[in-house]
Amino acid sequence: MACTEHTQVNLEKAEDAIVCASKLGVQIVCLQELFRSQYFCQKEDTELFNLAESIPGSTTKLFASLARKYAMVIIVPIFERRAAGIYHNTAVVIDADGTLLGSYRKMHIPDDPFYYEKFYFTPGDQGYPTFDTRYGRIGVLICWDQWYPEAARLMALAGAKILFYPTAIGWHPTEKTENGLSQLEAWITIQRSHSIANGFFVASVNRVGHEGPSLDVGLEFWGSSFVCDPFGIVLSEASREKEELLIADCDLSRVEKVRREWPFLRDRRIDSYSQIKRRFIDNLGSNL
Amino acid sequence: MACTEHTQVNLEKAEDAIVCASKLGVQIVCLQELFRSQYFCQKEDTELFNLAESIPGSTTKLFASLARKYAMVIIVPIFERRAAGIYHNTAVVIDADGTLLGSYRKMHIPDDPFYYEKFYFTPGDQGYPTFDTRYGRIGVLICWDQWYPEAARLMALAGAKILFYPTAIGWHPTEKTENGLSQLEAWITIQRSHSIANGFFVASVNRVGHEGPSLDVGLEFWGSSFVCDPFGIVLSEASREKEELLIADCDLSRVEKVRREWPFLRDRRIDSYSQIKRRFIDNLGSNL
Repeated sequence: MACTEHTQVNLEKAEDAIVCASKLGVQIVCLQELFRSQYFCQKEDTELFNLAESIPGSTTKLFASLARKYAMVIIVPIFERRAAGIYHNTAVVIDADGTLLGSYRKMHIPDDPFYYEKFYFTPGDQGYPTFDTRYGRIGVLICWDQWYPEAARLMALAGAKILFYPTAIGWHPTEKTENGLSQLEAWITIQRSHSIANGFFVASVNRVGHEGPSLDVGLEFWGSSFVCDPFGIVLSEASREKEELLIADCDLSRVEKVRREWPFLRDRRIDSYSQIKRRFIDNLGSNL
Repeated sequence: MACTEHTQVNLEKAEDAIVCASKLGVQIVCLQELFRSQYFCQKEDTELFNLAESIPGSTTKLFASLARKYAMVIIVPIFERRAAGIYHNTAVVIDADGTLLGSYRKMHIPDDPFYYEKFYFTPGDQGYPTFDTRYGRIGVLICWDQWYPEAARLMALAGAKILFYPTAIGWHPTEKTENGLSQLEAWITIQRSHSIANGFFVASVNRVGHEGPSLDVGLEFWGSSFVCDPFGIVLSEASREKEELLIADCDLSRVEKVRREWPFLRDRRIDSYSQIKRRFIDNLGSNL
């Protein structure tokens, strides 16, 4: 989706897409990160906390009714107001009967020019839960999390068969010519690698369109949403510019098949990974 | 390299390549996994333990003299006999003055049809050391390790700026037509992802040629050795079939640059990764 300045318009657009998906037999829908608004983290402004909402709240209520009506699992990213001064970048998972199964709160928070998320979002404190939906056990991570193999691994260990990444990532217009393709390529590569390392499906859901005061300022979201299988094979891929309802057929029995043929989980050296919890292994010498 | 049945021929071939590399100004050379012999793990035979040798030994002595003579760092994979009944799949790192800096013993040991490594190799017990060579701090992992993001991460935390993967991976001839490309693609993708996640160079060194009793039995090693930069961009890539001396220019200052622009190491949630040490998180329900 591209997002307008009007949150109600964005909400209705998402709703329309879900109705459309229901007619195509879709079982699990994932909306993009912070889908109700433009990507407001391009600047730091305390007024923008007004965009946040509670969970449960009016948005989850609406999507719970859609989930129940269409027997669909829906993943709903929300700018969550948890308490005065505590806001999260969250995704709620609603089961096909309308039940709120729980939420994932973004664990890894970026802070880069035009992505000032550390100003808005308290890092998640719920770890890496998975959700046993009607159509299979799934996990959700959000955007910046996609660069962290640890997060994907923990989702696999918690039984996820499909990992969703609602996302809002794009190019700085001034960098696009020089670095645009390598950035997009890195983004696809790292997410496909999570499928390969873990033997599960990955579905990455990004926004499209330019948001900013002028075409050479702001962010040009690169779309390119995709779904890949448990060996990293891309099943379905959206364009860089158009809004699309991207659908993929995920045969969950393929998780079993791929993990038998490539038994990476069998051979993990869990006795040897304790240093993963360190920031850095210092004092190794001068040449770091 | 392709390997013949004659270990002395293979050794001389490696030596010739190093002499050639020295004339081209190469600073760090990495030989392929178990380069002295054909990939003997295609069958289980106790006689084949005779291929193993001690460290230090005649092979390290030879390459130490070459390292000193040409002021080159050399990574020498060796089938290591550590004691009666304890053998490892090892790589020795020799500094540019001929000093043996240490060794890495393969941590993740595969066992698949035609890759019966669990029969031969005791899993490594030295963890993930890095080596402060004359030309920069490097790490070495071996083949099956390449599928484990944890291993690559631990090398980054230990300061590696270049991570080498001596390797022996190929196709089962009967599977090549159907799955060959997706296997090669997954192998490239996972290793490029380690560069991206960790902001270091990756150099993957594989053998070429068919080894086996007939062309439709055995293994067809897929070559495709490559070097990629700290953002996963492939700098240099070898063919699938030819023996090649693959050279890449690795500007180590790019590690600093890429990690500033994509500060993944800054934001790791080291407070949240402790479950990485688990085999699996059981008892989550029936839908695993």
